[in-house]
Amino acid sequence: MKSKINFITLAVNDLEKSLAFYRDGLGLSTKGIVGTEFKGSDTEPSGAVAFFEMEGGIMLALYPRSELAKDAKIKDKVKSRLEFSIGYIAESRVEVDNLIAKARAAGAKITDPPHNRPWVYSGYFEDPDGHLWEIICNPNSNT
Amino acid sequence: MKSKINFITLAVNDLEKSLAFYRDGLGLSTKGIVGTEFKGSDTEPSGAVAFFEMEGGIMLALYPRSELAKDAKIKDKVKSRLEFSIGYIAESRVEVDNLIAKARAAGAKITDPPHNRPWVYSGYFEDPDGHLWEIICNPNSNT
Repeated sequence: MKSKINFITLAVNDLEKSLAFYRDGLGLSTKGIVGTEFKGSDTEPSGAVAFFEMEGGIMLALYPRSELAKDAKIKDKVKSRLEFSIGYIAESRVEVDNLIAKARAAGAKITDPPHNRPWVYSGYFEDPDGHLWEIICNPNSNT
Repeated sequence: MKSKINFITLAVNDLEKSLAFYRDGLGLSTKGIVGTEFKGSDTEPSGAVAFFEMEGGIMLALYPRSELAKDAKIKDKVKSRLEFSIGYIAESRVEVDNLIAKARAAGAKITDPPHNRPWVYSGYFEDPDGHLWEIICNPNSNT
């Protein structure tokens, strides 16, 4: 197996709402919802998905939880906010603080405001589906 | 916010077991568990983590669920396998089949074996913590 990841697909409850959070709230670039020609059914997933192309060629995808369930043949009904986090390295404390503020303004819940940890300065927010992002910078940053 | 992701951190129940799955089972390269100098406490997370450097500079990290809970100030007790998936693009159907077989041999549960979907040929497996990976190739691949 090569050391690579091509997609991170986030399960979302409301595709339009989560798209708005990432596109309008955080300002990430996207072509919007694509794949709507794949209609799906009660047992087959529909193809409607939103992609955000990130640096390094990785794609962040938003895909309805109901459709991921059909596609992966998983039937879990519970939700958990403790499965993973996505980390973003900012250049300064100011940028960490600003990004956390931007996420809050976009409707994110701040689970832990930025502060010094033993290894980084960082804060955490949850997206509309409870997916964790940690915004991080070098703890020795002077700005 | 820039269009970038620096880390994907997977919450794991047993760091040694999950490290063995990714390193020995799937063959990904790692320096093993680092950050053990940060001991943590009942309320502060310990720093022990395993990193896998992926193409494009993104780091896949394995971090104990208990410590992510303290770091992000989240207390969820339930588990869910339906929060996200990681996508890996293989070059052929044969590579998809081989990677799914390799994951199975390493102890992964195959939730959906490789088959043609309307948009890709792919299969899904779960890592030891129930985190989904989809191994994908172009549905028009002849090999």
